[in-house]
Amino acid sequence: MLARILSIGEELLLGEIADTNAAYIARGLFDCGVEVRGIETAGDHQEYVADAIRRACDAADFLIITGGLGPTRDDITREALADVTGRNLEYHDRIMDHMAAVLGRDRAKLLDNQKRQAMVPQGAEVLDNRCGTAPGLWLEHDGTAIAVMPGVPFEMYAMFEEAVLPRIRERARVQGRLVQVRRYHVIGLPESEIDARLGELMDRGREVQVGTRVSRGMCMIRTRAEGAAEDGERLGRLLGDAEQRIRDVFGLHLFAEGEQTLPDVVVKAYSERGLTLSAAESCTGGRVAAAVTDVAGASAVLRQSWVVYSNEAKQSLLGVDAATLSRYGAVSAEVVQELAQRALERAAADVAVAISGIAGPGGGSPEKPVGLVWFGLARRGAAEVRTERRVFRGGRQAVRDRATTQALHLLWRAALDGADGGR
Amino acid sequence: MLARILSIGEELLLGEIADTNAAYIARGLFDCGVEVRGIETAGDHQEYVADAIRRACDAADFLIITGGLGPTRDDITREALADVTGRNLEYHDRIMDHMAAVLGRDRAKLLDNQKRQAMVPQGAEVLDNRCGTAPGLWLEHDGTAIAVMPGVPFEMYAMFEEAVLPRIRERARVQGRLVQVRRYHVIGLPESEIDARLGELMDRGREVQVGTRVSRGMCMIRTRAEGAAEDGERLGRLLGDAEQRIRDVFGLHLFAEGEQTLPDVVVKAYSERGLTLSAAESCTGGRVAAAVTDVAGASAVLRQSWVVYSNEAKQSLLGVDAATLSRYGAVSAEVVQELAQRALERAAADVAVAISGIAGPGGGSPEKPVGLVWFGLARRGAAEVRTERRVFRGGRQAVRDRATTQALHLLWRAALDGADGGR
Repeated sequence: MLARILSIGEELLLGEIADTNAAYIARGLFDCGVEVRGIETAGDHQEYVADAIRRACDAADFLIITGGLGPTRDDITREALADVTGRNLEYHDRIMDHMAAVLGRDRAKLLDNQKRQAMVPQGAEVLDNRCGTAPGLWLEHDGTAIAVMPGVPFEMYAMFEEAVLPRIRERARVQGRLVQVRRYHVIGLPESEIDARLGELMDRGREVQVGTRVSRGMCMIRTRAEGAAEDGERLGRLLGDAEQRIRDVFGLHLFAEGEQTLPDVVVKAYSERGLTLSAAESCTGGRVAAAVTDVAGASAVLRQSWVVYSNEAKQSLLGVDAATLSRYGAVSAEVVQELAQRALERAAADVAVAISGIAGPGGGSPEKPVGLVWFGLARRGAAEVRTERRVFRGGRQAVRDRATTQALHLLWRAALDGADGGR
Repeated sequence: MLARILSIGEELLLGEIADTNAAYIARGLFDCGVEVRGIETAGDHQEYVADAIRRACDAADFLIITGGLGPTRDDITREALADVTGRNLEYHDRIMDHMAAVLGRDRAKLLDNQKRQAMVPQGAEVLDNRCGTAPGLWLEHDGTAIAVMPGVPFEMYAMFEEAVLPRIRERARVQGRLVQVRRYHVIGLPESEIDARLGELMDRGREVQVGTRVSRGMCMIRTRAEGAAEDGERLGRLLGDAEQRIRDVFGLHLFAEGEQTLPDVVVKAYSERGLTLSAAESCTGGRVAAAVTDVAGASAVLRQSWVVYSNEAKQSLLGVDAATLSRYGAVSAEVVQELAQRALERAAADVAVAISGIAGPGGGSPEKPVGLVWFGLARRGAAEVRTERRVFRGGRQAVRDRATTQALHLLWRAALDGADGGR
């Protein structure tokens, strides 16, 4: 089954935002076994939009459209659809009621342009929008199923998950096809090593197809199996075998599955074990704490954390010895050792990480280049603070990003090791 | 002048990343006066890519392609271009030398697939890639100028700025047209108020066109003027007049211009005045410090900062009174007052902000709903800590995002007020 995605919005053509909607939809379609052949972005030109719709109907089983459903005359998706499919636009009473309720206004007092949102191409099914006023549409034309959703991301997400994906899955079921996809996240290995460990799993033509994508020092591994609908059990077994192999070859480099992120698994690992963590951040400047507290439930895990950007702060907040700083410099094993140990003690935490590095653009030297980052990891009951030295490539943002990822990785590993008190 | 953008990459169709390249290119084209009519994304299907190229050549003056220039057989951009333009692919010696130099390898030892990158459609100009191995291309076909660049963003950015945009500007100059664009960033006003203040500037048909885009509690205002190339001075004057009007009606709500961000202007305002800042973050969990330290040069401005996520941390790290916490709760004017004052004193900073709120999803109550955030702002020499209460809509990420933006806004305003010591 083939699909095309059409994103409508002048702001996309002006380059003011990237098209994240299309990526979200493409991923959902992939997971149902639908192959996205093309994504197209158009503005408020009805003729251009109609042309894109026409081409998609020629080539695809599904066309997923977002945007252009608002109340203004620039919102031309409804008209373009009516034009291509040769249908009239009709008022829908139910939509008027819904809009009046959402806007908290009497139906009679809706403005003329608001009423435009209640226009529906004849015969199209209306998809409820529980996060906004503009309803979605589902219609069939020339063998292509067309879904139309609002362009506002959180309105679209809900409608896609609740109304569009189930209709697409149902169609796949009727066609007797079944696709299963799983995802795994690996950290701490270069791409070539990941490929080598996957070995023959990566060979083309296998029933379980394996793909990888490296990004920000991590790698996502995707497995996919496709077969007849009645084959579900066998496909599940094949994917299970591949999963077992992936677990075996990656061990603790495999940190998450599916939609989980590294901060998610850090918070999960600590809260499941009743452990707490803290951080003393220099070059990451609060990013580690921010990443952990982005996760709901972080309050059980992180109670306090320090940003010690200057040498004075390292001394006054966490009591790093002035002699250590002057002898070894702020970016050194000795300083991250002291920082991590003091953060552990002052926070009364089970694990503390310290990060000190040279993010750039300035501040580098031949011995300590931009990208050099020292990590210290202190654990309650452990005799020593472990240290690690890394040199990350890229600009200031890339170095801070990688350093944050590495700190989270160290925290996660420390929680897993925590069963033996880190000794 | 019309353009189309074609992004090639299987990972885009799988939904694994959003197409940020297209947004970057679209923005650059807009600023040269080129109108982007459509953006298209395709995978590794040569036929599909060739079809997209053909359609773009029919409709646009410029076609900007990214991706599909790598060494593998899946990289089919060169072949698709050769097919559509009816040219042969030829080896380019200079590219081979460049690749050998970048890879630090003898030319004779380049692998066959690496040599694919040295294939160029006959007559195409080669654009140097100073950040990677795959060169770009510039060619003309049927009146359309086609630029081809690698899909790796940082390789593309450099090539686009240094080789592609100058060629496009030159063409605009030859055609005798000139476009100028300016951007302004406003904070702290609802969209309706921004529209009202812009007044007749927003009218259609004026020589200076004004557009707005609201995002994350801020608004970008764009002005654009177009005319004959010899009209440059007059257009500049018109944009200058509009700018003066925008400055007048927005005053201190206008915080940045062009590509500047809110963290950029915070760091600039403090470093220009020799001031320092600090933060005591509860619900933002380090995001304010992380945003400030994202900016190069932040070390002169932020020396230390605290994440005080728990009540104990508020007491032990910043000495908030247990009685204040139990009487008013952590999310209260009283607590952010104490936090901000102590952060100011302990950091010996000129300004300190404290943020305490309920980011959700849990923890809300009728009196203190999810989204409620209190801000405290302490300034050296000021008798009182200013407080501000806000209720932000949206989920956990949106609340943390808005709270961070508001804290940065308060910090920026405090620096501007700083001339009188905040008294």
